[in-house]
Amino acid sequence: MDAERLQKQISFLLEADKEKNIFRQTHLSNHGRNENDAEHAWHMALAAFLLREYANQEIDLARVMAMCLIHDIVEIDAGDTYAYDEAGKATQKEREDKAKERIFSLLPDDQKAEMIGLFDEFEAFETPESCFAHAMDNVQPFILNDSNGGGDWKEHDVSISQVLKRQTQSAKGSRKLCDYVLEKLEEHVKKGNIKDDRENK
Amino acid sequence: MDAERLQKQISFLLEADKEKNIFRQTHLSNHGRNENDAEHAWHMALAAFLLREYANQEIDLARVMAMCLIHDIVEIDAGDTYAYDEAGKATQKEREDKAKERIFSLLPDDQKAEMIGLFDEFEAFETPESCFAHAMDNVQPFILNDSNGGGDWKEHDVSISQVLKRQTQSAKGSRKLCDYVLEKLEEHVKKGNIKDDRENK
Repeated sequence: MDAERLQKQISFLLEADKEKNIFRQTHLSNHGRNENDAEHAWHMALAAFLLREYANQEIDLARVMAMCLIHDIVEIDAGDTYAYDEAGKATQKEREDKAKERIFSLLPDDQKAEMIGLFDEFEAFETPESCFAHAMDNVQPFILNDSNGGGDWKEHDVSISQVLKRQTQSAKGSRKLCDYVLEKLEEHVKKGNIKDDRENK
Repeated sequence: MDAERLQKQISFLLEADKEKNIFRQTHLSNHGRNENDAEHAWHMALAAFLLREYANQEIDLARVMAMCLIHDIVEIDAGDTYAYDEAGKATQKEREDKAKERIFSLLPDDQKAEMIGLFDEFEAFETPESCFAHAMDNVQPFILNDSNGGGDWKEHDVSISQVLKRQTQSAKGSRKLCDYVLEKLEEHVKKGNIKDDRENK
């Protein structure tokens, strides 16, 4: 066995451990504490496995799950940028590109290339796998927030146009899950959990 | 779409959310807090993807990752049983069987059967996939504990015969990773991080 190669892989796994301390805006179900990136990625990958029947196209499930597991790893350096934080999103790409290079460079070269490939594929949001993984990235926090009476939307004073901008993109991976989310969102608007800023209310 | 089916799948995902509050004996790297089951499962699945080249046999990676993601779900009801807690292990099977039936029954019948199949396959520890997933279940906490100077072994006054009983089983999934762990364990014995209770020291 190539001892140096294994040592690099272990160094990467120890670096990834830090995702357990990157906290997101989403709260656990039953109004628990904030969720961290590792928990979010685990829940997304599990959702991908269980909800795969709703993918628009045939998908390579191992690739989808791997994308789910690593899609937030750059936040170890770049921090979590809330989906509806427009100022943070302006500098997000630059911060995340630097982090991507540093963190994946811990791996042997072939795996660095493989993981950056998966990461970039997720970001590009074009292949069936990345589109379904993105749907999971939207559906997983939606499920938690829906179970909490929309607490996260209320806390951030989020409007329906912001939520729709993000959630309608899930249709690229799963029209069926997107339809489900959109129907539920209207219920949250009616209850006042999300501000209705549309012109034709 | 079958609304009742999706609702059952979402109920299961919300139940699984509770794994984020089941804490293990293992600590995060750099002597952090205790790790929870969701974080452990995420880290194991990521390790399975990155270390798959060391599997003894060809494996279906999506199945391995799915096993990693759900193998501890019964602990939502049954609690975590530390690998070296012999009293707890005596009642572990009965507690976990009840939990398995309750939790997977939240899913539609076909997925309940699929997930119990995966869960039981992991427990039976016979197929190439379950053997490699078991290796990850041993290697992942080993990597963390190794990075922390063996703090978890010291805290529980664990002996090398106990650790070897567990860690040598990893060879069923990956002889190479098992060899790496065994070599490192001897270093921890030398440093006094693990008690040496072998007759021929």
